Amino acid sequence: MDLQQIADEVFKATNIDVSKSDLERLVSILRKKTNPWEIIDYSDFPIPAVFESISNLAKKDIVQISEKGIDLTSKGREAASVMHPVEDLSCKNCEGRGVDLKKFAPIREKFIKIQRKRPKPSHDFDQGYVTPHSTFSRFLIGYERGDIYGKDILVIGDDDLLSIVLGLSGMPASVTVLEIDGRINRFIKDIGQQEKFEVNIEALDLRKPLPRKYLKSYDTFFTDPPETLKAADAFIGRGIGALRSAGSAGYFGFTRREASLNKWYDLQKMLTGYKVVVTDIIHNFNEYINWGYEKDTRAWELSPVKVKPRKNWYRSALYRVATLKGYKGSSKNYGRENIYEDIESSTT
Amino acid sequence: MDLQQIADEVFKATNIDVSKSDLERLVSILRKKTNPWEIIDYSDFPIPAVFESISNLAKKDIVQISEKGIDLTSKGREAASVMHPVEDLSCKNCEGRGVDLKKFAPIREKFIKIQRKRPKPSHDFDQGYVTPHSTFSRFLIGYERGDIYGKDILVIGDDDLLSIVLGLSGMPASVTVLEIDGRINRFIKDIGQQEKFEVNIEALDLRKPLPRKYLKSYDTFFTDPPETLKAADAFIGRGIGALRSAGSAGYFGFTRREASLNKWYDLQKMLTGYKVVVTDIIHNFNEYINWGYEKDTRAWELSPVKVKPRKNWYRSALYRVATLKGYKGSSKNYGRENIYEDIESSTT
Repeated sequence: MDLQQIADEVFKATNIDVSKSDLERLVSILRKKTNPWEIIDYSDFPIPAVFESISNLAKKDIVQISEKGIDLTSKGREAASVMHPVEDLSCKNCEGRGVDLKKFAPIREKFIKIQRKRPKPSHDFDQGYVTPHSTFSRFLIGYERGDIYGKDILVIGDDDLLSIVLGLSGMPASVTVLEIDGRINRFIKDIGQQEKFEVNIEALDLRKPLPRKYLKSYDTFFTDPPETLKAADAFIGRGIGALRSAGSAGYFGFTRREASLNKWYDLQKMLTGYKVVVTDIIHNFNEYINWGYEKDTRAWELSPVKVKPRKNWYRSALYRVATLKGYKGSSKNYGRENIYEDIESSTT
Repeated sequence: MDLQQIADEVFKATNIDVSKSDLERLVSILRKKTNPWEIIDYSDFPIPAVFESISNLAKKDIVQISEKGIDLTSKGREAASVMHPVEDLSCKNCEGRGVDLKKFAPIREKFIKIQRKRPKPSHDFDQGYVTPHSTFSRFLIGYERGDIYGKDILVIGDDDLLSIVLGLSGMPASVTVLEIDGRINRFIKDIGQQEKFEVNIEALDLRKPLPRKYLKSYDTFFTDPPETLKAADAFIGRGIGALRSAGSAGYFGFTRREASLNKWYDLQKMLTGYKVVVTDIIHNFNEYINWGYEKDTRAWELSPVKVKPRKNWYRSALYRVATLKGYKGSSKNYGRENIYEDIESSTT
């Protein structure tokens, strides 16, 4: 089994760079997992390339595909036996995020209860949302780093309902949400009235530059952009432009499921261009709840086996960035351009 | 209390950029901590700038310095009362590293026992070494990411004794150590003989380019450079040059105690130049054991109170990088240049 050759063939078919190590990891996962979505989760490279690799391995008689799932052939099993046995070692107590989930437990429990009645995700707005523990942990990390207490906070896109945790905590000086989905905005407003906290909410199209009143006005932003470079520029770049001064912080999620390491590299170059520094990248921090519209996605179309996921399978890393002197956000106007999809996307 | 003005004055005195948020954090820490080393630990900006900030705050009657330690004045206490209450929320179970310390416990316990007889750190080689849990967690993270099992591994500088954990695990295809300190090399060799594992060891001066036989020969490297850009280039850049192909991985520690966010930024630009991508930055991953030669360091000289640390106070982040097509390490020859110190250093 020449993994480098397979990597080259996958690149030819998909135009997405994969490495020998990516394929080694994939083959090793197949020793334990048969559900396509769980395989994706552990593979940590873009979905179209994972599925193309699986087809390729099937042609080479390493993998067999049936209605039951994806499995190694006896030839594949032999080859895989010398490889790294993929295992999830993430800490059970903090779910691998590094922050103690037991802190501020009353806020967490209240939030878990409140969010049960939230609007369901809409495919129109690319709204896979994360587990309440993920949202709550964003608050914990932000708090620990000193980016929450007494701060003016901007949440760009809030289908994860972070503003509700922030409101319940009573810690920020102010919370502002820019979110296009009216259902979510109403939900946040209603909870705010019920729980007696205030959130400023505005519906904005992030493809356009931020109105002047948002510029240089916040200490901290949170966002979770779709995984294209243009969307990253629109969401993260706007967030940076909204920050008040050097030493302000921004948080965002970025996955490998729809972004190759090449795209991560380009993102990091873009961040360098904004003159911000990355202080944290926490692997698999955000865990997304299965959003229910899987069958309408490109990922479903690409999957060699049409089965639904059983567990949550879509995860992303959490980035924290800090501004340095001379930082500069994005004021690029994308008009009505589709900035949400590229060749590595498959769930938007 | 005008924190921006103080930040500007600290910059003038030290040439190290600090932000308003840095100072806010420092003042807030002083509500709880009086030992200079613990204050440093939570401040997360370079030691010379922290101590200069404290002197400056003392001049402005925010801080009082006595033999007992560093404390807020009543004026300072009032100003601090509205600030973020600094707190360590890191998960108790994984010590904030995100990986389950209970995995492979027999290896961990054996390592903890073995390392008790290790050579003590030598100031000659800038050898603060980390806790055994930190070293063991490096192994766990590397294992989880698929960078250990069946791999050829290069350890550049091994006062943390990672090669012993790797040897005890029996997982890597091979382990090579480049370490200048003969005492450590003998210790690793002796343990290898006793525990029946093999480690290739060579004493090299990292200021010179790697001999040809090390180039493009490893799947994974680990290193922990002194915190200057030149030393980062010499250690990390050599590590990258030693990696075999795209998709190979490197791990290294980098602290904020001796590196401002500006230096982190320059490091990240340097990594972009090597054509590697950062996949993880784990805050406070590495915890250093008090090394015993504090009194001979610049940090001691700068400290306004000459007291010894009581707890471990020096921590650093763990970076993981992955190579992309076209990656390129460093072959720069630094000759006999002192690449180990710059204005932000204070413990080398």
